[in-house]
Amino acid sequence: MTAFPDVPVIQYEGPKSDNPLAFRWYNPDEVIEGKTMKDHLRFSIVYWHTFRGTGADPFGPGTAVRPWDDGSESVENAQNRARVAFELFTKLQAPYYAWHDRDVAPEGANLRETHANFDAVADVLEEQQKETGVKLLWGTANMFSNPRFMHGAATSCNADVFAYAGAQVKKALEVTKRLGGENYVFWGGREGYQNLYNTDMKRELDHLAKFFHMAVDYAKSIGFDGQFLIEPKPKEPTKHQYDSDAAACMNFLRAYDLDSHFKLNIETNHATLAGHTMMHELDYAGMQGGLGSIDANTGDLLLGWDTDQFPTDYYLTAQTMLMIMKHGGIGSGGVNFDAKVRRESFEPIDLFHAHIGGMDAFAKGLKIAAAIREAGELSDFVKNRYSSWDSGIGAKIEAGEVGFAELETYMLEKGDVDANQSGRQEYLEHMINKYIDRI
Amino acid sequence: MTAFPDVPVIQYEGPKSDNPLAFRWYNPDEVIEGKTMKDHLRFSIVYWHTFRGTGADPFGPGTAVRPWDDGSESVENAQNRARVAFELFTKLQAPYYAWHDRDVAPEGANLRETHANFDAVADVLEEQQKETGVKLLWGTANMFSNPRFMHGAATSCNADVFAYAGAQVKKALEVTKRLGGENYVFWGGREGYQNLYNTDMKRELDHLAKFFHMAVDYAKSIGFDGQFLIEPKPKEPTKHQYDSDAAACMNFLRAYDLDSHFKLNIETNHATLAGHTMMHELDYAGMQGGLGSIDANTGDLLLGWDTDQFPTDYYLTAQTMLMIMKHGGIGSGGVNFDAKVRRESFEPIDLFHAHIGGMDAFAKGLKIAAAIREAGELSDFVKNRYSSWDSGIGAKIEAGEVGFAELETYMLEKGDVDANQSGRQEYLEHMINKYIDRI
Amino acid sequence: MTAFPDVPVIQYEGPKSDNPLAFRWYNPDEVIEGKTMKDHLRFSIVYWHTFRGTGADPFGPGTAVRPWDDGSESVENAQNRARVAFELFTKLQAPYYAWHDRDVAPEGANLRETHANFDAVADVLEEQQKETGVKLLWGTANMFSNPRFMHGAATSCNADVFAYAGAQVKKALEVTKRLGGENYVFWGGREGYQNLYNTDMKRELDHLAKFFHMAVDYAKSIGFDGQFLIEPKPKEPTKHQYDSDAAACMNFLRAYDLDSHFKLNIETNHATLAGHTMMHELDYAGMQGGLGSIDANTGDLLLGWDTDQFPTDYYLTAQTMLMIMKHGGIGSGGVNFDAKVRRESFEPIDLFHAHIGGMDAFAKGLKIAAAIREAGELSDFVKNRYSSWDSGIGAKIEAGEVGFAELETYMLEKGDVDANQSGRQEYLEHMINKYIDRI
Amino acid sequence: MTAFPDVPVIQYEGPKSDNPLAFRWYNPDEVIEGKTMKDHLRFSIVYWHTFRGTGADPFGPGTAVRPWDDGSESVENAQNRARVAFELFTKLQAPYYAWHDRDVAPEGANLRETHANFDAVADVLEEQQKETGVKLLWGTANMFSNPRFMHGAATSCNADVFAYAGAQVKKALEVTKRLGGENYVFWGGREGYQNLYNTDMKRELDHLAKFFHMAVDYAKSIGFDGQFLIEPKPKEPTKHQYDSDAAACMNFLRAYDLDSHFKLNIETNHATLAGHTMMHELDYAGMQGGLGSIDANTGDLLLGWDTDQFPTDYYLTAQTMLMIMKHGGIGSGGVNFDAKVRRESFEPIDLFHAHIGGMDAFAKGLKIAAAIREAGELSDFVKNRYSSWDSGIGAKIEAGEVGFAELETYMLEKGDVDANQSGRQEYLEHMINKYIDRI
Repeated sequence: MTAFPDVPVIQYEGPKSDNPLAFRWYNPDEVIEGKTMKDHLRFSIVYWHTFRGTGADPFGPGTAVRPWDDGSESVENAQNRARVAFELFTKLQAPYYAWHDRDVAPEGANLRETHANFDAVADVLEEQQKETGVKLLWGTANMFSNPRFMHGAATSCNADVFAYAGAQVKKALEVTKRLGGENYVFWGGREGYQNLYNTDMKRELDHLAKFFHMAVDYAKSIGFDGQFLIEPKPKEPTKHQYDSDAAACMNFLRAYDLDSHFKLNIETNHATLAGHTMMHELDYAGMQGGLGSIDANTGDLLLGWDTDQFPTDYYLTAQTMLMIMKHGGIGSGGVNFDAKVRRESFEPIDLFHAHIGGMDAFAKGLKIAAAIREAGELSDFVKNRYSSWDSGIGAKIEAGEVGFAELETYMLEKGDVDANQSGRQEYLEHMINKYIDRI
Repeated sequence: MTAFPDVPVIQYEGPKSDNPLAFRWYNPDEVIEGKTMKDHLRFSIVYWHTFRGTGADPFGPGTAVRPWDDGSESVENAQNRARVAFELFTKLQAPYYAWHDRDVAPEGANLRETHANFDAVADVLEEQQKETGVKLLWGTANMFSNPRFMHGAATSCNADVFAYAGAQVKKALEVTKRLGGENYVFWGGREGYQNLYNTDMKRELDHLAKFFHMAVDYAKSIGFDGQFLIEPKPKEPTKHQYDSDAAACMNFLRAYDLDSHFKLNIETNHATLAGHTMMHELDYAGMQGGLGSIDANTGDLLLGWDTDQFPTDYYLTAQTMLMIMKHGGIGSGGVNFDAKVRRESFEPIDLFHAHIGGMDAFAKGLKIAAAIREAGELSDFVKNRYSSWDSGIGAKIEAGEVGFAELETYMLEKGDVDANQSGRQEYLEHMINKYIDRI
Repeated sequence: MTAFPDVPVIQYEGPKSDNPLAFRWYNPDEVIEGKTMKDHLRFSIVYWHTFRGTGADPFGPGTAVRPWDDGSESVENAQNRARVAFELFTKLQAPYYAWHDRDVAPEGANLRETHANFDAVADVLEEQQKETGVKLLWGTANMFSNPRFMHGAATSCNADVFAYAGAQVKKALEVTKRLGGENYVFWGGREGYQNLYNTDMKRELDHLAKFFHMAVDYAKSIGFDGQFLIEPKPKEPTKHQYDSDAAACMNFLRAYDLDSHFKLNIETNHATLAGHTMMHELDYAGMQGGLGSIDANTGDLLLGWDTDQFPTDYYLTAQTMLMIMKHGGIGSGGVNFDAKVRRESFEPIDLFHAHIGGMDAFAKGLKIAAAIREAGELSDFVKNRYSSWDSGIGAKIEAGEVGFAELETYMLEKGDVDANQSGRQEYLEHMINKYIDRI
Repeated sequence: MTAFPDVPVIQYEGPKSDNPLAFRWYNPDEVIEGKTMKDHLRFSIVYWHTFRGTGADPFGPGTAVRPWDDGSESVENAQNRARVAFELFTKLQAPYYAWHDRDVAPEGANLRETHANFDAVADVLEEQQKETGVKLLWGTANMFSNPRFMHGAATSCNADVFAYAGAQVKKALEVTKRLGGENYVFWGGREGYQNLYNTDMKRELDHLAKFFHMAVDYAKSIGFDGQFLIEPKPKEPTKHQYDSDAAACMNFLRAYDLDSHFKLNIETNHATLAGHTMMHELDYAGMQGGLGSIDANTGDLLLGWDTDQFPTDYYLTAQTMLMIMKHGGIGSGGVNFDAKVRRESFEPIDLFHAHIGGMDAFAKGLKIAAAIREAGELSDFVKNRYSSWDSGIGAKIEAGEVGFAELETYMLEKGDVDANQSGRQEYLEHMINKYIDRI
């Protein structure tokens, strides 16, 4: 039985191929800087958009044609869907996937039934993982769709909702551990507010921190040693999400002594909604030891909501890979396609076109980044730009040997500063194009 | 000698007045919640926009007509301008003012001359402060206008520029202390980057922290005990300012052990450029003990740059005062009009219209906020909304008595959560209007 | 039988009332500038948000509790819902309402059944209109929710979809006429594109114009003489909506000879998404004879999507009414609350709080605008500002008596221009506050 | 005498070159679709940014080092600067340049002197054009920098300012004609408003139209037959520019019977500030016969002001060239680099790096676009997508043979529409990458 009878396992055919069902750039075993493409990129496919997305938007219901899905909320349908998912993962040669609990298994009439449903589908996920070798990048709990979470989960004004969320994450952690998940992610969902008039922000954030500490404690108690991740996003669905950007996340983690337990999952479209480039958020997280994983998508910078489009822009993918490589790789994280096909791309085959395009864009981005790194032109430029800090007054400042008094003495004598050098932005942007040209 | 012969000291005449050169709402000695309006609001007028602003914009030179200013960069002109400034401060009944070093005194041919110029003008400032009773809210150093700061000051790639900045802040701290300044502010200026290709963000932030520690040390050494403040702003003039919003500032302060020495100066227009409401930034800073002062202006939310307009919207001023009062007042900070008249409002009298409008808007905002607080309707709503946390499972969670295992047990038994209550946003927004109606 | 047993007909109780189920400002029979508030404002309640909105958002299903609605797509449920709607309209004293065809009646298995369903519900609408005196402000057809419209309706790449849409509008026009609708509206829905790579914009716009001409012809053929309206919106659901703002609409109407048949329905939140103030769009449409009606809501200017919030800001409502009164009133249009309660405001009573808040805000806005107009301070300022055009060279230019050659002669002699006057923006903004204070 | 002794005439060296002072892609005589690159691209260099830009921004004065410029406002300095400009044009192999009147020649004490200054510099421009073969793409008048234009030029509330502007444009037209300028451009400058409270928008737009008609008449009288262009921009310096986007421009031109005399100069950064892609504005203008020329720069989509950066993104340049070629080329217009080096790129050599990067990006964009056109894959996709319009009901609709009644009959019989096809956005974006890969 196959859901995609006309789709072969997607193979690498090289840049000259005109076969849309082949990779032009993603060549899993190709070695770059001593590591295979597969290990650099650690591609992951998301269950939510790819298998539960319908194409619904605020102006109309779903359009997606998914012949394998009977549309019911039965466990059987969920189990069948899981098998189809692994066919797609395998045909795309994706080594990882990721889920929310409620993506894979339906909610039951009460928490007990919901847990049981989850276990029943987890059996199939485990079976499929073993059969295909596809691994779980992470698990996470959907604590935002059900109306009970309307005011948030850990930050709800309703204490029962916190309790429910705790029970839900407990289970999700157990299933993540069972399936060998390498990370566990908290995306903020509705942890934020719609209106400050009715909100006690301090109390809500205290609760959120309490929740995360409970998660850390529970993970320890069951021996789950995957990485915890939180995910910056500034708005949507709430007017203000507490995890608004990498800085807000890091500040929260520091303020509540959680920084040794959590890293960040940085998403392109969330970065730009917060007014930052993806490159910035990656570098900012990375320099603080907080870069855990990425959600690889793209937004439309002329639209003000999260469009979660598949990434195809080589500048974006090259910059992303430059930052990941600068910070020593993505660790236990991955390049996770938190991306959805457009509502108008409603046919099953579009799922393949979309992932192939994204995977190829990242593979070429990796090659561009590696070429830039190998040539050394860019890193030499930067090193040289800061050379005044490597000796003289710069070195003394860095060594903590001088204070304002010494600096004044130094400068009174000198009168004014040594000449600045051009920042050469245009030269550098043109230089980057050279490496795009040459791949 | 007077620069504003036709302008009297602006007096409170009450809401029925049609005199544009009178206050309709700002009644300095009126007591609200046991404190005078004057002490609640601590109005401050900025030297930079009001006495050095010319109305220049990227598309044309200045338009401002300032008959007292001969346009020269002489010390004499600077001293004369200072006397005019105090006439305006006094006529507006503003208890405070604020400057950058380069606003009040011209740069000399070298650092030594620059220092001397500054001292010469500081003499007049001191004389005027004594004469009028107007006090210095804060001093700050302009480390962004001179081309030497093109790549930043403390975050410049040029170590000499850091040294120059250190010498400059040393002097600015000394003059601030001499003039009894109650705070010292660092607005980020060009501390940020234009382009990540040429930037070593980590090294730059390390330098910035080093710089702030030097400032703390030097202040201690000279016995300056005013409050240090940094000021969030996300962009402009750089593409990315390091102090991008309150969260980024707090994270930086925590990361570099500076949080006990610094608070934040929150600016309305900077908040909105970062995608936050002023109310949010105030509450966020306040709940972390970081609310130091405010720059009271407004932006145009349909424009993407810092317009620094005078605030006249009662919703904005009432929300701002609600937050300030919630967090126990503005401390040693003030309501500082970091605002500029429009390029087309080029006549001297516009400076009065602008400040009167802003001061009245804040005075009415204070009265609205006090009325909301006195009525208690809003605070009761919020208290009640979180009441599930005051007993039962909520209280146990807050007390740290339960973990995920206990929460699961609790919820398995219960099956699902107790019903949520409406957030009543529309009801609350309409309620707020009631208090605007009644002032 | 009543759906809102605890809600009386909302009465005017005046500004001192603390009764949240009373009007503080909306006093239907109060006369302003010789016309009742009711006739100035012509309030209309929308069927779609108020009776079909569920609170669903892209991150979760609906939350709304609507005890009268059995959730089915049956005609009976639709008929029953219609009766409840008229109870709400009546209790809010709203003289008008508005619908999409698919809001009021469910889609059938084919077009014939769909038409029949519509007729069956229209019977109840007609009965209720007669019984209550509530009138139909407009009808419109939903040509965007059903998946068949994924690529647009009149601008679909699929000609059949254009045909279907034509059949649908034919019917909607007939029902609008039957129910005495005073206007017929086309909101763009999915008339736009998601991606230019796959789009023939010219061909699509030609089709759209053809469609509107067919509507005009058909209306004439059945004697429907209500006003046709199109509605500017720049984006959402498509990346680019063809009717992007008032200017784009007017240009389209002129280009295809439709300008004598169509006016605009201006919506606050759409204006701001397009980067314009509501005041601008109203003035722009009004000065070209194109102001037909308004969708009275508000957006959140820090969010990039259409939030359709209820308007409560007095500045917004006063500015809106200033513009409507400047252009001679809203004609056959109305102040239509195209607004939805927040997802968290899920109880039936929130529908009342929301509309009462919006109606009161507009009533006070009307009073503020009338006060500004009566005082004449603002209009005198503007008249005086342009006085140089009323005589001399200005009058000659307006009269077409001079060209560049004469202007050069005039200016060579004069050397430079007569002095400019301050634009006095700050003075004017403060003046506007005076009128808010005094109502 | 040379201002750039170390810079040779920039030569094409091909993609393998590592010489930053060579073209990798711009090969002027290379023939594409039967026309040389030079003729396709018609590159133009702007006088304002490149020779009058100082790097000043709202937070500091200029940084630019320009050894040839003595900083004075003398005619001699202006004449000398002009000679340097032509050295740069020539070394960059740019066939065109463009100016504002006030860029090239200083303002005098009165209009007569200003005219004389202009003539004196025009002598040198004419001499240099003859000597080098560089031609004038367009002239335009700066009617926004001088304080007299604070309230606009043709839309000023001060009639004298309109008169002055008329005299100024008269002269600019004469000089443009003398120098063989192929177009004459009106960028809006301050034609817009800062505040609607003080603005009579209708009267201002009437004046603007009057002004343009005078320009048309005067051009005719002196035999200037270049193309008139207006330039969309939504904001900056004013809050609202009247020429806000292509649609607003076209509507204005139609409303005032100017559409046969004017086309549009579309600028990338202005398009995006208005919420549109460059591709959209080009297609929109082109399909109405209004595409006249382009200002080739790029903005930073995360910043809200006009950054006027040099374009280096291949997606942008390929899309731009696709649209230009689709609409039959750029006519008498050109690819005009209305772009400025960053404030930190202050050295003369940065002017070369910037232009080389932009020219190469456009040259490669042209090659990508040509490859896409030659392959036909994209155009076939679009043609096929609309094939339902080429026969059957679609063809009847286009031919005007059917109305709503016939469409209803057709659809009642059919019941519902023929199936839609996927829009294939992801497939197409990935396909476009293929052509980038292959150049």
